[in-house]
Amino acid sequence: MPSLDPIEYADASPEVRAVYDDIMATRKTDWVNNFWKVIAHHPPTLQRIWGNIKQVMSNGALDPLTKELIYVAVSVTNNCGYCIASHSAGARAKGMTDEQFSELLAVIGLANETNRLAIGYGVPIDDAFK
Amino acid sequence: MPSLDPIEYADASPEVRAVYDDIMATRKTDWVNNFWKVIAHHPPTLQRIWGNIKQVMSNGALDPLTKELIYVAVSVTNNCGYCIASHSAGARAKGMTDEQFSELLAVIGLANETNRLAIGYGVPIDDAFK
Amino acid sequence: MPSLDPIEYADASPEVRAVYDDIMATRKTDWVNNFWKVIAHHPPTLQRIWGNIKQVMSNGALDPLTKELIYVAVSVTNNCGYCIASHSAGARAKGMTDEQFSELLAVIGLANETNRLAIGYGVPIDDAFK
Amino acid sequence: MPSLDPIEYADASPEVRAVYDDIMATRKTDWVNNFWKVIAHHPPTLQRIWGNIKQVMSNGALDPLTKELIYVAVSVTNNCGYCIASHSAGARAKGMTDEQFSELLAVIGLANETNRLAIGYGVPIDDAFK
Amino acid sequence: MPSLDPIEYADASPEVRAVYDDIMATRKTDWVNNFWKVIAHHPPTLQRIWGNIKQVMSNGALDPLTKELIYVAVSVTNNCGYCIASHSAGARAKGMTDEQFSELLAVIGLANETNRLAIGYGVPIDDAFK
Amino acid sequence: MPSLDPIEYADASPEVRAVYDDIMATRKTDWVNNFWKVIAHHPPTLQRIWGNIKQVMSNGALDPLTKELIYVAVSVTNNCGYCIASHSAGARAKGMTDEQFSELLAVIGLANETNRLAIGYGVPIDDAFK
Repeated sequence: MPSLDPIEYADASPEVRAVYDDIMATRKTDWVNNFWKVIAHHPPTLQRIWGNIKQVMSNGALDPLTKELIYVAVSVTNNCGYCIASHSAGARAKGMTDEQFSELLAVIGLANETNRLAIGYGVPIDDAFK
Repeated sequence: MPSLDPIEYADASPEVRAVYDDIMATRKTDWVNNFWKVIAHHPPTLQRIWGNIKQVMSNGALDPLTKELIYVAVSVTNNCGYCIASHSAGARAKGMTDEQFSELLAVIGLANETNRLAIGYGVPIDDAFK
Repeated sequence: MPSLDPIEYADASPEVRAVYDDIMATRKTDWVNNFWKVIAHHPPTLQRIWGNIKQVMSNGALDPLTKELIYVAVSVTNNCGYCIASHSAGARAKGMTDEQFSELLAVIGLANETNRLAIGYGVPIDDAFK
Repeated sequence: MPSLDPIEYADASPEVRAVYDDIMATRKTDWVNNFWKVIAHHPPTLQRIWGNIKQVMSNGALDPLTKELIYVAVSVTNNCGYCIASHSAGARAKGMTDEQFSELLAVIGLANETNRLAIGYGVPIDDAFK
Repeated sequence: MPSLDPIEYADASPEVRAVYDDIMATRKTDWVNNFWKVIAHHPPTLQRIWGNIKQVMSNGALDPLTKELIYVAVSVTNNCGYCIASHSAGARAKGMTDEQFSELLAVIGLANETNRLAIGYGVPIDDAFK
Repeated sequence: MPSLDPIEYADASPEVRAVYDDIMATRKTDWVNNFWKVIAHHPPTLQRIWGNIKQVMSNGALDPLTKELIYVAVSVTNNCGYCIASHSAGARAKGMTDEQFSELLAVIGLANETNRLAIGYGVPIDDAFK
């Protein structure tokens, strides 16, 4: 298996460094997390995904904290350990409290339960929801 | 297959009606959606799930609209048609705009994508996230 | 899109008819459900899957009804409408009562919930479970 | 990240201890597994989920071993490592043999396969199943 | 619920028409499928997703047909009816035969089965695969 | 928990050795990976799954490398760590380059995203796809 170790800034090509620089400038931090350093093995993916994240996760009709909570909800439902860790940290950095984290998990859990009750019982969609 | 048609109020037992009444009183509406009318075929499930929903979805550290957005995020990821319809309607009733709905779907979609990139590349969790 | 309509017995090739005959003889019925009639478009798949089902779903250390309940649990979790319908019918034919069906769905729902709580909170595995 | 280490009995609040006591009394054991000790960080979730488990997993129209098998089926399909470990142990404690465990996994695997064949081929639901 | 009907070319804004035009020019066709006409309700999503598809699905180290097969594999595993229909059609337009479609579904099905066996049995990763 | 350690050739029964021998002969290698050594705890499963793999993964209308790519696509979507490792290795052994691996992951990721957009927006299937 070829190495997919994270590519550090010192070892990165100019095009990869340009993305790292933009990540740090946008996030006002001095480090880049492993997700970016690993997908940097394929620069077109690095550039494309960073472009998507910048557009989708910026402040808009939904605020950045709410977007992080939604990200965690998807990541827990899909069981992505890395994503739960990184986006929970992202949510905390944007102000999520312990109580909010627990309520977030409570909603995620209950939604996963009632999803299966609706599916298993074959509940017909109400006219009012169409 | 025995009928799992929604049980209407007029045909419901007193214990089922008591839950329907509490749903309508809590939500300040005069109708009950099909999810409850179908799981009413098993009153212990009806009572248990309604008790859970009341506790989990009420106002707390997270506001009710944010909780509905999280519910939609789980439901879309799991592809539950009924749940997407009912909780999108719930979110709209609590103030979700068209723009917010589209941003919600954009975050859900992108999270599902980056979840698989993190999983496929086997990104190691940063020490800062542990 | 080429037709993937169910292939009826009258229109089936001898190798497909041989599988249909074995399905009916094994199940002591005089009809074949659509799942088999559709995968019959690819006879190697029809023969292979029927061979698997015969081996896995027959009476063994677990009885046939319990196996159908497990089948429904997977199908509801994956949201496979056809599979929920066919294996719920299979379970009923093997004796599943309405009360058992509702308890089955209750367990499926709750398991889907606690799965996400364990994942979201990152619960470490107890030594006693290793 | 704030600690989400399991909360031991000695360090638990009275309301959390009350749930731990009820878990041990109900299960006739002298220990509590990590799932409860972690969700204890949010007592309303601890109390709610324990109440659900007590109601859903008790003896009813389905026996406790069958319910554990269903729990494992959902947990394997969702890939929840903690849940597979804890509910497999629960099933063994209720009498599951090695042979039954292997048949359980065989059914889970095959159901996951045929779910996708039914979905991929778009098999129409038979009238007999409606 | 506000209408999310597909937005036809005649009713589209100039920025949406520009994307439709590029889709038709790139694909050398004279129509646009509903996926684009629905996400056109949020032009930033329309532009972003089309940009992603153009980059990712174009000819590269993997040929366009292979990419469509992979797309179908994901869509069947996730049970996305629209995506199965559209990407199966895309694969056929790029030369997929009936036999290839059936082999594709056979691999998808079997992978879903062995995934759960590996997860359920907790198979440790071989040193040779690390 | 009874041991589910891999069963080495030296410790295997004749019926298990016969499958190991066939795996090595078919693959022209001198070792067997852990997946087979673990499911060998249940010889009927070992024989059945190996028979399925031999039939489904052999050269046919789709070539063996394409089949491995499809296997990886399913395994990443389901988050099966063992399966990603073993089938990525299988794909590399059949010629997959680094660039192809990255394009594979890019398609998998994007398909997971657009699946949820199609589901969340409820895109109606075009007549041309029916």
